[in-house]
Amino acid sequence: MGVVGLGLIGGSIARRAVAGGARVLAWNPTPEVMDAAAAHGVEPAASIADLCAAAPDVLVLATPLRAMAQVVAEVAPRLDAGTVLTDVGSVKGPISALVAAAGASSQFVGAHPMAGTERTGYGAADPGMLDAARWAVAIEPTTQREHLVRVVAMITGLLGGVVLPVDPEAHDEAVALVSHLPHVAATELLNLVGRSRVRSLALNLAAGSFRDGTRVGGTNPRRTEAMVAENPWLVPALRLLVRDLDRLADELERTGGAPAFFDQATAVADPISRRTTPDAEPGVLPLEGDWREALVAAGLRGALVTGVAAGGGALLTAG
Amino acid sequence: MGVVGLGLIGGSIARRAVAGGARVLAWNPTPEVMDAAAAHGVEPAASIADLCAAAPDVLVLATPLRAMAQVVAEVAPRLDAGTVLTDVGSVKGPISALVAAAGASSQFVGAHPMAGTERTGYGAADPGMLDAARWAVAIEPTTQREHLVRVVAMITGLLGGVVLPVDPEAHDEAVALVSHLPHVAATELLNLVGRSRVRSLALNLAAGSFRDGTRVGGTNPRRTEAMVAENPWLVPALRLLVRDLDRLADELERTGGAPAFFDQATAVADPISRRTTPDAEPGVLPLEGDWREALVAAGLRGALVTGVAAGGGALLTAG
Repeated sequence: MGVVGLGLIGGSIARRAVAGGARVLAWNPTPEVMDAAAAHGVEPAASIADLCAAAPDVLVLATPLRAMAQVVAEVAPRLDAGTVLTDVGSVKGPISALVAAAGASSQFVGAHPMAGTERTGYGAADPGMLDAARWAVAIEPTTQREHLVRVVAMITGLLGGVVLPVDPEAHDEAVALVSHLPHVAATELLNLVGRSRVRSLALNLAAGSFRDGTRVGGTNPRRTEAMVAENPWLVPALRLLVRDLDRLADELERTGGAPAFFDQATAVADPISRRTTPDAEPGVLPLEGDWREALVAAGLRGALVTGVAAGGGALLTAG
Repeated sequence: MGVVGLGLIGGSIARRAVAGGARVLAWNPTPEVMDAAAAHGVEPAASIADLCAAAPDVLVLATPLRAMAQVVAEVAPRLDAGTVLTDVGSVKGPISALVAAAGASSQFVGAHPMAGTERTGYGAADPGMLDAARWAVAIEPTTQREHLVRVVAMITGLLGGVVLPVDPEAHDEAVALVSHLPHVAATELLNLVGRSRVRSLALNLAAGSFRDGTRVGGTNPRRTEAMVAENPWLVPALRLLVRDLDRLADELERTGGAPAFFDQATAVADPISRRTTPDAEPGVLPLEGDWREALVAAGLRGALVTGVAAGGGALLTAG
């Protein structure tokens, strides 16, 4: 395995792969990080070009979103024909477009592990963070069956995760709703208190609802901004939220209540317990015929891919 | 002590007071709840009139906000001259107005314990929930010194809490920001996912940021609606949020970033660790001269009242 970028996610992947017995080569712009990773068994590469020349089975791009365009442009022309390229970016459509522009789509299978903490950097990397992690894996018209199988095998085997097959656009729309918009809301709740004339009193009155509702507002502001700004679905979702809350304010002013607004939420409350679990209804999805469409449809229904069937001609599913 | 309403908060107060050695009389509209409370040593009153006639030192109104107008109207004309009236409602201005309209302001000291869970009802009551709880206590021109001292002594002694002295309007503005608006945001985040065409995928991609950001959206929708609708500061706060997020969407569309928006939040991130603790800078605030103004000013700076000084002529403070 090759890894470009040894931050929180890239570092966790490299260390977990080493612990699982894989040979891992990595490159990171900071020599100190390369040294720290070497102490964990990660082999340093002198450059991105050297990393590509080593022809890893899978090359994982784990660089910040803002550096992705440059890294893709550097990697694409040097990619060995036997290497599958993947990434861990929180948006899939824009990265897929970068890879297509660099001419590497036929070797690319984009991914996004739903794991992380408020911390950043190799020092915060933790192989255990990936235990049973959900990885969105983008299925596109250019996705090659054998490349997908290799990435799924890596995620569900070596890295101990499960896969959600996704259309890149549906993925970006979904994470706008469940990750990027909650980050914006948490930030704005903190901003309103910070600007308030009753700020000290408000912080002293704050209890669990404020602490939980604003936890992700404590993340590195540059990383949050990049994540939010790179997702083309964020602004439309934000406009919907603005419209809904403007109407709510009107309704509260006019009628003194808003029963429908508060009733709707109960249908999706406790969302984590409502999602598919890897032990739900096991199934097999053969990689033949319209397998790309079938995979994306399964993902939209909430199915998970838990592994590769013996022989590699099908994926094992749950839900 | 008298308690009207044995729900989550009233039940927890009654049980904690009994455990602390106080005699507690209570009334609740449901006989089953009265029986359950009797098993915990809470004496049942046959009616609100009987409860008032028993002349408790403090009578705590712990009824839902929607029932408060009726209960205040029933209690006020029957209140013994030796009883101090208090309440636990999440808004202080509107309840103070109800009490004033019923002619009981001179015997009233409103309060709001910052404690609770997503659960409701006597079955969820737990005396431990009040451990070191912060209670906002409203200071008004009509607040009598000896009544305030009695309520502060009850909260900081028998009930094991600390007191934040507040102007009712500043309190309502602050809880709009740290409680009611976070409830609205959590509800809207759930609503947007619930209505989305990628709902199942979104719930499967949801991780900690969504679970935490929407936790309070799982609360009883009628209780949340009442809490939000009764606070006159909620709509102005909601309008500010709508304006900010509309501008954010414009800025993201126009420039592809929004550095100031994301930077502001870091100044108030980790709010719980930034608040005053009861062991900060101890002080004494004498209840003489402009003591009401001095108490409200101390509360706005973030000071806590931790007890009553010997003799009752001053309050002990921290921060």
